Amino acid sequence: MQLALATWHEVEEYLQTSRGIIVPVGSTEQHGPNGLIGTDHLDAEFIAKGVGDKIGAMVAPTLAYGMSQHHLGFAGSVTLRPSTMIAMVGDIVRSLARNGFERFFFINGHGGNIANGRAAFDDALTAQSLHANGRPSPIRCHMEASSGGTRATAPARALFPGALGSHATGVEVPPAQFSPAEAIPRAQMSPMVAPASTSLFDCFDYRRRYPDGRIGSDPSLSTPQHGERLFAAAVEDMADAYRTFMA
Amino acid sequence: MQLALATWHEVEEYLQTSRGIIVPVGSTEQHGPNGLIGTDHLDAEFIAKGVGDKIGAMVAPTLAYGMSQHHLGFAGSVTLRPSTMIAMVGDIVRSLARNGFERFFFINGHGGNIANGRAAFDDALTAQSLHANGRPSPIRCHMEASSGGTRATAPARALFPGALGSHATGVEVPPAQFSPAEAIPRAQMSPMVAPASTSLFDCFDYRRRYPDGRIGSDPSLSTPQHGERLFAAAVEDMADAYRTFMA
Amino acid sequence: MQLALATWHEVEEYLQTSRGIIVPVGSTEQHGPNGLIGTDHLDAEFIAKGVGDKIGAMVAPTLAYGMSQHHLGFAGSVTLRPSTMIAMVGDIVRSLARNGFERFFFINGHGGNIANGRAAFDDALTAQSLHANGRPSPIRCHMEASSGGTRATAPARALFPGALGSHATGVEVPPAQFSPAEAIPRAQMSPMVAPASTSLFDCFDYRRRYPDGRIGSDPSLSTPQHGERLFAAAVEDMADAYRTFMA
Amino acid sequence: MQLALATWHEVEEYLQTSRGIIVPVGSTEQHGPNGLIGTDHLDAEFIAKGVGDKIGAMVAPTLAYGMSQHHLGFAGSVTLRPSTMIAMVGDIVRSLARNGFERFFFINGHGGNIANGRAAFDDALTAQSLHANGRPSPIRCHMEASSGGTRATAPARALFPGALGSHATGVEVPPAQFSPAEAIPRAQMSPMVAPASTSLFDCFDYRRRYPDGRIGSDPSLSTPQHGERLFAAAVEDMADAYRTFMA
Amino acid sequence: MQLALATWHEVEEYLQTSRGIIVPVGSTEQHGPNGLIGTDHLDAEFIAKGVGDKIGAMVAPTLAYGMSQHHLGFAGSVTLRPSTMIAMVGDIVRSLARNGFERFFFINGHGGNIANGRAAFDDALTAQSLHANGRPSPIRCHMEASSGGTRATAPARALFPGALGSHATGVEVPPAQFSPAEAIPRAQMSPMVAPASTSLFDCFDYRRRYPDGRIGSDPSLSTPQHGERLFAAAVEDMADAYRTFMA
Amino acid sequence: MQLALATWHEVEEYLQTSRGIIVPVGSTEQHGPNGLIGTDHLDAEFIAKGVGDKIGAMVAPTLAYGMSQHHLGFAGSVTLRPSTMIAMVGDIVRSLARNGFERFFFINGHGGNIANGRAAFDDALTAQSLHANGRPSPIRCHMEASSGGTRATAPARALFPGALGSHATGVEVPPAQFSPAEAIPRAQMSPMVAPASTSLFDCFDYRRRYPDGRIGSDPSLSTPQHGERLFAAAVEDMADAYRTFMA
Repeated sequence: MQLALATWHEVEEYLQTSRGIIVPVGSTEQHGPNGLIGTDHLDAEFIAKGVGDKIGAMVAPTLAYGMSQHHLGFAGSVTLRPSTMIAMVGDIVRSLARNGFERFFFINGHGGNIANGRAAFDDALTAQSLHANGRPSPIRCHMEASSGGTRATAPARALFPGALGSHATGVEVPPAQFSPAEAIPRAQMSPMVAPASTSLFDCFDYRRRYPDGRIGSDPSLSTPQHGERLFAAAVEDMADAYRTFMA
Repeated sequence: MQLALATWHEVEEYLQTSRGIIVPVGSTEQHGPNGLIGTDHLDAEFIAKGVGDKIGAMVAPTLAYGMSQHHLGFAGSVTLRPSTMIAMVGDIVRSLARNGFERFFFINGHGGNIANGRAAFDDALTAQSLHANGRPSPIRCHMEASSGGTRATAPARALFPGALGSHATGVEVPPAQFSPAEAIPRAQMSPMVAPASTSLFDCFDYRRRYPDGRIGSDPSLSTPQHGERLFAAAVEDMADAYRTFMA
Repeated sequence: MQLALATWHEVEEYLQTSRGIIVPVGSTEQHGPNGLIGTDHLDAEFIAKGVGDKIGAMVAPTLAYGMSQHHLGFAGSVTLRPSTMIAMVGDIVRSLARNGFERFFFINGHGGNIANGRAAFDDALTAQSLHANGRPSPIRCHMEASSGGTRATAPARALFPGALGSHATGVEVPPAQFSPAEAIPRAQMSPMVAPASTSLFDCFDYRRRYPDGRIGSDPSLSTPQHGERLFAAAVEDMADAYRTFMA
Repeated sequence: MQLALATWHEVEEYLQTSRGIIVPVGSTEQHGPNGLIGTDHLDAEFIAKGVGDKIGAMVAPTLAYGMSQHHLGFAGSVTLRPSTMIAMVGDIVRSLARNGFERFFFINGHGGNIANGRAAFDDALTAQSLHANGRPSPIRCHMEASSGGTRATAPARALFPGALGSHATGVEVPPAQFSPAEAIPRAQMSPMVAPASTSLFDCFDYRRRYPDGRIGSDPSLSTPQHGERLFAAAVEDMADAYRTFMA
Repeated sequence: MQLALATWHEVEEYLQTSRGIIVPVGSTEQHGPNGLIGTDHLDAEFIAKGVGDKIGAMVAPTLAYGMSQHHLGFAGSVTLRPSTMIAMVGDIVRSLARNGFERFFFINGHGGNIANGRAAFDDALTAQSLHANGRPSPIRCHMEASSGGTRATAPARALFPGALGSHATGVEVPPAQFSPAEAIPRAQMSPMVAPASTSLFDCFDYRRRYPDGRIGSDPSLSTPQHGERLFAAAVEDMADAYRTFMA
Repeated sequence: MQLALATWHEVEEYLQTSRGIIVPVGSTEQHGPNGLIGTDHLDAEFIAKGVGDKIGAMVAPTLAYGMSQHHLGFAGSVTLRPSTMIAMVGDIVRSLARNGFERFFFINGHGGNIANGRAAFDDALTAQSLHANGRPSPIRCHMEASSGGTRATAPARALFPGALGSHATGVEVPPAQFSPAEAIPRAQMSPMVAPASTSLFDCFDYRRRYPDGRIGSDPSLSTPQHGERLFAAAVEDMADAYRTFMA
């Protein structure tokens, strides 16, 4: 069930049965020669909707922009500042909590969001913990990597042996291409497998080390069939994680 | 052309021919008994994509959340604070400008965003104007109401004579329903035409005056056919406005 | 009645009879070759005091600085950032509300303040609407253009036929000159009527298009007599608008 | 010369001869049974204009609101938060500096502003000092107590022997009453001399200790003649301090 | 070499040979019945000074407060908000970078700081990456867990078999007690091994689950001898990590 | 009693007997040719611990960084922005107040912190004073100059006749050297007595006027014996001031 496609009466009915909501969050940043700029948020959005359909959970509109400063050396990449992410996540949680939502399950398609998402939760929790009245709040937030479950990571490693990498990878590029987007880019990549990751600093450093945007990956052979398979596995993984969070 | 579905190489090619980008912005808020909570951002997104397809302009991922404090009395509504909107819009503009975008055309589906969008542009412009170096910046931002053009408003007034209203209206409810969302809610509305608008203050005041969420409107008879017609008109209007802005 | 000239005992007495207060807000920015830099706040202040005297409303000290980034290309212009205006308006409202004021009527002499004033009200209202306790607040804010009423705009159009313009206009320049300020600048203007307005961006763009600061206006013939007439009309307009707001 | 009453051409001419500007800053807060709420900003404004007239210095529009949290227990008092004052002072300095002002002389009518004014200057100076380019900035800010000079304090002590006090005092109440404001409040005060000052904390504590708002003072006998004398002395003091600052 | 104990001339000399600096960061929060409230920052400080002595690296003054909202249910615990940590870390980095430091190695004694430290680095890096001039910055930040290296974790697991836990653990409690603080608290703990960790939310939830503050640990038998051994191992680990970072 | 060396049970016991806590605050900035960069925070820390030991007051971990923008022209100096100091002080006060502390006595080793500390207290007090509920808060904050008492200033003036100065002075340099830090720098100073203070602006201006960092002082003859004597006097002074504050 998508929040965007519900009426407010339908949301009230849903709240009779559950206090949980899934929020997809990703990024808008380069994903190498054949990866879509929206890869991370498309992955998060499709997997979240898959989970919502499978187990009847409400899914909020996608946060399509994230922490992507590393990628600003490549055209089309957008970053939010940490303070912007903290504010945005907090506003969404506080607004939905006002009318009854209590459990916020963020399905995250972008590793760069983890620290800032955690900082956003810390910010909300600090306000609760400092509150003079001293009553516990029912609000709980949790972030899970969209393709980080066991069902999704095993076949991804098998499909891209030794070249899964850490950006523009075989776990993230294919599911986005399995989305309604039909145009799947083709690209010659050289070297076939991109340089492996080291510590990352600013975007100048990033582009110098990883000139086509990939880190340690060879997504050149990713296909919609890979995407379909990984998508299904990720939906299973995230559905389990959501059920655990709600328990 | 959608930024989310492009690779960074494709964005670089696009920048050879144009410095403009369309950013859809809307809200996540109640739209009465049969209006979708995502109405405003779905409208903005579909119209923006329509314009992008029609004239080859790049379309950025949608900002699905906006200034909606009036609506917090109804379940499922979300508001950003003004400072959050200012920060988010500024981050997107600064990021895209870094690699060559110069003209930012926001197609806005929600009246409540106008002041905050303008404040966000003021914030960016103040930084430019105060800058000691004293060089003019090529960055320009503009916001246009998605259904505010002459082609869209005339038939909307004709389809809903005397009951177009100012929230959950016949201009905004139908286009969202024409979207891929198949499930069109049906609802009995009483009174048929909602009370007319007066000044709006906080969400308690709003819910007391407009108990089912509508203001001055009767969207009960809105159909996908209305949506299709209004959508097509709005795309024409916005395409013209974009061309004027880029000239 | 002016707040600055009252004692706190007198304010307590006033609050027995009314919960309303008028706050004049303007700008400190160039107004062309013969317009005063304080035009907008002087207009707002004199009209507000006129309304206060006429109907016994309390008038707060003037906010003399506003959103004026367009004008930073001209010496003596000052701008606040949007976040500063939001903070300042919020502090004033919260402070006065603490001891009983509930209705805040801003008489605004500068079009550039409208969006930021609205954002400031949105900020205050969001805090009210998000508040967990769920009680409506009595606080209401409203902004009205000092010279935007029907009584003031009609004669201004007649006095400056075809050359009223949109900055350094015949509606705003004369009332400020009718103020205690005796020194009325004289200036040769060329062209007589300044170029008409288009979209405005940063201050470099502004100065290039409107080299003497005026937009579409010919204030060269403005006289204290014009000012006296427009001032009286504006006081009538604003007194009506205040009464409507307080009803 | 008042900035508000100048045209931008006149400001350009002034900048040929001087880079200095005087900014009056005060408060809007209770001043006891017969003191005006605007006492501090009226004092600062009249003394600043007196200095401007005497030595031909430019005077900016008055900052009428300040740090007044202690006084929020009395109707009509307004406080800005420290962050608001820092932002406002910084915006004014940065805007005026853009077109050539370099020396900012704040004539301050309210002791509670001293720390926040200093913090505002620290904020501006930190930005200068951290700047990578490593060039010294010509911008200098200074704050002076409007009635703190030797010429003003001596007769004030003589006029109110043993009862000058530290709020609603004989140095600040009379000059404001010498202003165009004709209505001079009369009030019976009991005790004649208010309790002496101790450390100040929040507004509840303040009102409990000083129930009519005065601290250590007996302003009941203040007259416009006192005001005239103290005003003239303060203008002399501030003119000297300004000349020293500009040297 | 400690920055606090150097003169500025000595710092200039140091910068001729190295651009690196170590910043210890910890927390001020409860650590169970016999753990010191300063455990995390004392650990970080002593290990950092140990590394500094061993390899001649400069060590900055300790950040003794961190993100500790979970612990606010226990007296003496202090938390910073995420925005405060981001600001503080940024100010320190920018200040030291101004005169030549380039590599910032944070030795962190508290797991709760990881996300906020990363957000602080993201904030600094975003400013670099968005900068229009497009030059890479030499500034690099890295955070390492003070007791997270292989030399320290192995013996800790051996010393506290099955009861190392995740708060008030045998890795963190002993080194702080090995510090100059002689008074080692003794406490009866019940149960001997605290409940194991689950997800953590606000401080009410925390105290309900872990009533004496410990999570999964049995630090009752920790001794200064343990502390000495773990301290020495951690210094070795961190010295290696620093050398790798500087390479 | 040091908070860092207590367990949370011990803090609870302390709160049965006292609601007061001492917070040392200083700076990390150059102190001339033979002064330690940590002088100000070392002084504050040692004196605070001395007071704590003497009268059984709790001492919180030291805030080692402060407002030091003047000194950024000298290697090793660090400044916080005013907004950072306000946030940090507020977080510490709010956290400790949550579990029962009410009186916060800041022992300050650095004059540059006074305005920002006051602004931080104003910020906390404004929140209290604006609070709608209208109940007085027990929280009180006070800042005292570590070496500003009568017992410490008299011998300092005697030890450094005519050359006490205002930065890198004989009151502050010796006590830090009396600390466990054994290495006491020796330096030739020229001129023997540094130039006297005038108004201070940014760091470029500072370094030009005071090229070796000192202002008006001759600390070349400071000895650990001076430090011991001044330290003992300052502990007496501060113990008295704390008792007065707590009364």
